[in-house]
Amino acid sequence: MTSAYKTLEARFRQMSAIGGALSMLGWDRSVMMPPGGGEVRAEQMAVLSVMLHELQNAPDMASLLDDATVENGLDGWQAANVREMRHGFKHATAVPADLVDKLSRARAKSEMVWRTARQDDDFKSLIAPMKELLGLVRESANAKAASFGVAPYDALLDGFDPGRTMAQLDVIFDDLLGFLPGFIDAALAHQETLPNVLKLEGSFDVPAQERLGRQIMETLGFDFNHGRLDTSEHPFSGGVPDDSRITTRYDTEDFTPGLMGLVHETGHSIYERGLPLDWRGQPVGRSRGMTLHESQSLLYEMQAARSPQFIAYLAPLLEGAYGGSGEAWEVTNLTRTYHRIERSLIRVHADEATYPLHVILRYRLERAMIAGELEVEDLPGAWNEAMAELVGVTPVDDRDGCMQDIHWPSGAFGYFPTYTLGALAAAQIFTTARQAMPALMDDIGNGDFKRLNGWLGENIHSTGCRYSPDETINRATGSLLGAAAFKAHLKDRYLPG
Amino acid sequence: MTSAYKTLEARFRQMSAIGGALSMLGWDRSVMMPPGGGEVRAEQMAVLSVMLHELQNAPDMASLLDDATVENGLDGWQAANVREMRHGFKHATAVPADLVDKLSRARAKSEMVWRTARQDDDFKSLIAPMKELLGLVRESANAKAASFGVAPYDALLDGFDPGRTMAQLDVIFDDLLGFLPGFIDAALAHQETLPNVLKLEGSFDVPAQERLGRQIMETLGFDFNHGRLDTSEHPFSGGVPDDSRITTRYDTEDFTPGLMGLVHETGHSIYERGLPLDWRGQPVGRSRGMTLHESQSLLYEMQAARSPQFIAYLAPLLEGAYGGSGEAWEVTNLTRTYHRIERSLIRVHADEATYPLHVILRYRLERAMIAGELEVEDLPGAWNEAMAELVGVTPVDDRDGCMQDIHWPSGAFGYFPTYTLGALAAAQIFTTARQAMPALMDDIGNGDFKRLNGWLGENIHSTGCRYSPDETINRATGSLLGAAAFKAHLKDRYLPG
Repeated sequence: MTSAYKTLEARFRQMSAIGGALSMLGWDRSVMMPPGGGEVRAEQMAVLSVMLHELQNAPDMASLLDDATVENGLDGWQAANVREMRHGFKHATAVPADLVDKLSRARAKSEMVWRTARQDDDFKSLIAPMKELLGLVRESANAKAASFGVAPYDALLDGFDPGRTMAQLDVIFDDLLGFLPGFIDAALAHQETLPNVLKLEGSFDVPAQERLGRQIMETLGFDFNHGRLDTSEHPFSGGVPDDSRITTRYDTEDFTPGLMGLVHETGHSIYERGLPLDWRGQPVGRSRGMTLHESQSLLYEMQAARSPQFIAYLAPLLEGAYGGSGEAWEVTNLTRTYHRIERSLIRVHADEATYPLHVILRYRLERAMIAGELEVEDLPGAWNEAMAELVGVTPVDDRDGCMQDIHWPSGAFGYFPTYTLGALAAAQIFTTARQAMPALMDDIGNGDFKRLNGWLGENIHSTGCRYSPDETINRATGSLLGAAAFKAHLKDRYLPG
Repeated sequence: MTSAYKTLEARFRQMSAIGGALSMLGWDRSVMMPPGGGEVRAEQMAVLSVMLHELQNAPDMASLLDDATVENGLDGWQAANVREMRHGFKHATAVPADLVDKLSRARAKSEMVWRTARQDDDFKSLIAPMKELLGLVRESANAKAASFGVAPYDALLDGFDPGRTMAQLDVIFDDLLGFLPGFIDAALAHQETLPNVLKLEGSFDVPAQERLGRQIMETLGFDFNHGRLDTSEHPFSGGVPDDSRITTRYDTEDFTPGLMGLVHETGHSIYERGLPLDWRGQPVGRSRGMTLHESQSLLYEMQAARSPQFIAYLAPLLEGAYGGSGEAWEVTNLTRTYHRIERSLIRVHADEATYPLHVILRYRLERAMIAGELEVEDLPGAWNEAMAELVGVTPVDDRDGCMQDIHWPSGAFGYFPTYTLGALAAAQIFTTARQAMPALMDDIGNGDFKRLNGWLGENIHSTGCRYSPDETINRATGSLLGAAAFKAHLKDRYLPG
């Protein structure tokens, strides 16, 4: 007789293959598909999604999980695999099927309205669909809360970053709030004393940008035998661990943000590729939630690639790729370009120092929305007030205010905190790596990422979901996630030495 | 209560979506996938294939089909849809599951060996895997023969071209054999009296070839809103009717065969796109077998695009695209280039006059193999003898002899005849179209395919599987498939007027 565990392994392997197929079809839709293929593609993806859902919610799933949980002879990885299966099942079954269905339709509608509403700066048109969606998200959060025995917002957090709670966030974010305002003032004052940033002038043609981008990706450790780089309107990382599909968009006026965007996506991809090979297709072999995922992209981008050492390595490559010369192309100006702090309106363009303030704002507001203390129609006022208080700027419209992100209109509440937790984790993990490998910054200055990749592979990537997110960070760095390393990093990079 | 018919429609719609997903994943594998993605892609495709197979062979399928067959109130299309469902089911269930499994493994093995064996001209290494495969193909053909009450080879034909029989093939091929040898002698003698074909000299860079290729595809009626053109090592037409994926390969020394290859694939694609919109995802909405499919690609390639009128339209475009000039680029030489007859060794490079002889040879040999009258080890001798007799040339090795095609090593017996039946159907259908539209060749000379596409759409494409292949041709042309139009076409094109 096949053990319950073995049956589950086979089932989840099948689900992973369908999920992988969906991922490839989604990539193709964004990158390759002719517009007229949309209808039949939607049908293909819907059919596969239903099959995935049916496997996930099979009538015998609960009893298989119960049997596997008490099964003798499972090793640590297998037991963790069952725990992860159960975690997904718990989320999938806590919400009644008709609510899942309503949510998915309300999401699609509100996301669609958001695209137009944002473009037209017309928040009013978004109120009704967003209110409907928020109501359903609350209902879903309440159902999960009742089922898991936690607070509704904590139940949402757990979906993106298993085990994360408001209690932890409050401690960490209060720590940041005690530091950042004074730090940003000081950093800006110091920045004032430096020469102005010179714009890198030129027309940066797409083939040259792509060539350099691929070169940098390979330098970082991206394996083009297991991945591709393409172009899409909204850049993303897709595919599966052994077939990573990164997309980017080229700005011929300014290549600098796009290049760091590529580094960021490469970090995501190296993480996926480094997940435990023996556990491909099993829940325990997946990435360890959004905080850990973001920690890896930000580690490569903010900690490694924006370091003065790597910028010095980059300078001659940029000159060579674009035929640039003169003061603007010198290391000092490149470093200032990539180390500029600015109080600004848009999260995705924010520097690493002000970014957490954008996140804390969203955390406050979304938590209040889930608790029923903030209604959709009051969002613009609350947003603008919080922006003035936290970031120190006030939006002139809702387009660049509370409508700038797709997350809420698409029903993702509880996701934003992972961006900043990821930045903190990146700093903490990178600090540990530097301590473990004293010559690490020399490596990076030479464009040599072998040792860094080896260390991350061993301490983070290859552990998959063997441990909880908190435990993973604790095992890799010797302490639980906190803001100390991040604060030290900021001080080191942005204040006079 | 849902009717059996409605249940089947839903089931087949789902199967079609999975099949479409598989088609896209297969396209990506050939065109986009990095090599390292092969393993996980194989897993994804295997899981979807098993799901498709399980749906096709669901325990209630037989009774649903029985109920739907006697269901009241079905219209002609719905009844034809049930007939097509039953046809697929009949083929799927005639062969025991373990034989299907053995076949699929023997196929994979023999195909793999063939790739190396062909390269090394080492037929001996292919004997064992081909013998094993042929044994299983015979077993499968015998099982189908017993189940359908027909001869084993007829059962195989029926899988590619429903209703086709050896009895019909013998009549048609005997007709061709009574005509072609004398015709080819006469055409070659006439060709001798013409000036030599001048080679189009130049280096034909890929972007220029691609630009012109796309332009010609659009001229023919390919809709890039519903399809793509890409590059792959082995050109093919993939995708689904509303998202057609054509691939090609560019030879920078000689663009002429590649260009006609594109026209050929475009013909396949226009057929698929023209299938009845109301029946997308249903068996009755599919293309009407391999003979009809090939008839459409060959109609565009051999009948329309190689006509003197279209070659005259093409000449200035070629000159413009490649900056060619001089005698070689004149219409007379282009026409001779595209109308050259030659007794040659390789089927895929053969001209339209000698091509049927390559097919008849294969028909004779594969029929004998299925009947147990020819064994794998005797194939090279039988091949070389038949080549000398039928085509008038003798292979110097097996690479360009009996190992040139992938069909047999991949278990496709009964497929080859559809190439020539398709050529005959193309001539017959095109002749009817010219009679129905007296100005058709003027249209084609102007690069205007609207009327031709409209006529084919109405008479062939939009009928899907409403009628049998024979009935489809009979309704479109007023007579059953025969060689008369093809013979007249050859005489008209290749003999002095």
